[in-house]
Amino acid sequence: MDFSSKLLEKAVEEIALLPGIGKRTALRLALHLLKQPEEQTVHLSKALLDLKTRIVFCENCHMVSDTKICSICANVKRDKSTVCVVEDVRDVMAIENTSQYQGVYHVLGGKINPIEGIGPGQLNISSLVQKVKNGTVEEVIFALSSTMEGDTTNFYIYKQLENESVKTSTIARGIGVGDELEYADEITLGRSILHRIPFENSLKN
Amino acid sequence: MDFSSKLLEKAVEEIALLPGIGKRTALRLALHLLKQPEEQTVHLSKALLDLKTRIVFCENCHMVSDTKICSICANVKRDKSTVCVVEDVRDVMAIENTSQYQGVYHVLGGKINPIEGIGPGQLNISSLVQKVKNGTVEEVIFALSSTMEGDTTNFYIYKQLENESVKTSTIARGIGVGDELEYADEITLGRSILHRIPFENSLKN
Repeated sequence: MDFSSKLLEKAVEEIALLPGIGKRTALRLALHLLKQPEEQTVHLSKALLDLKTRIVFCENCHMVSDTKICSICANVKRDKSTVCVVEDVRDVMAIENTSQYQGVYHVLGGKINPIEGIGPGQLNISSLVQKVKNGTVEEVIFALSSTMEGDTTNFYIYKQLENESVKTSTIARGIGVGDELEYADEITLGRSILHRIPFENSLKN
Repeated sequence: MDFSSKLLEKAVEEIALLPGIGKRTALRLALHLLKQPEEQTVHLSKALLDLKTRIVFCENCHMVSDTKICSICANVKRDKSTVCVVEDVRDVMAIENTSQYQGVYHVLGGKINPIEGIGPGQLNISSLVQKVKNGTVEEVIFALSSTMEGDTTNFYIYKQLENESVKTSTIARGIGVGDELEYADEITLGRSILHRIPFENSLKN
């Protein structure tokens, strides 16, 4: 593309570095900002900079936070003996939105993925193992997505915790609420039959 | 959504103000930036701020520019007597990419659109009329998209220039190069037959 302005070209280049945004979309966004009042760009620019420079990760669970210990870990009402292991911050938000979980979290920051060069050392696994070894954790719930990488990560952590006196569990796999049986894949449907639960239990929520 | 951090929430809100970006995408982008080196966010933030605060619009053609007069208007090789009227900056880039046009441009900054409350007064129309009245322009080429708003805008400008001694033309409508005839709409196909050109002319490019 032939830009008439170096400033515009630079902005488009930087925006296009974001995932899922190509040069054309980046140009559209840049020209949109040019049409808007200056405050919008100033606020956006400041919010991005603040996000990166001032945000911290909770020392305990690695969740994004404004303080050293996040609001979930700091909440005395949460059950510290149950730790839910998730891939990233969005998973914590998703589970929090259900209002069904009263334990705490442990954010790994990714999944083991040899193809992309992500090994256990780059994830927050050792701090989880240490937390369990300290003896305050009674149950570890694996809540990673059940892809090959997720299963590998689950199994790696499971092996690390094998000799500890801690219960490990995984979230239930099955047919989603409202989903049609006939469109479900065979593995999910098979597991949902194998891991069936007493009918009365399904009436509770 | 339940954010664990006010900084993250603020960044997501600001990103989600951009067109075509919802809260979920904004969160994905914000978390992506968090994972990247700090320089990326600093550069992005600075590029956006520079774009808005330092960019200027060419005094002559209203194109985005780093200088008071844009590189196209300042180029002595460009034919200043031919002015191509376009909706926005992207159209200038698109035409420049063809390398077929040697005249200059006039960027309107939009189209007349009563539904969205955009009247002729909000567009750069009076400066175009003034330019023609000054007598240096020989031809005005309308290159707006042929929607109702585009046609209205063309006609409005045409009426303003009616009493001036200036040639007005519009870009050719017809079947796109490589397009299948059978999929073309009737209006386009009809116009392409009405406005047929001598075969030899089509061999030139």
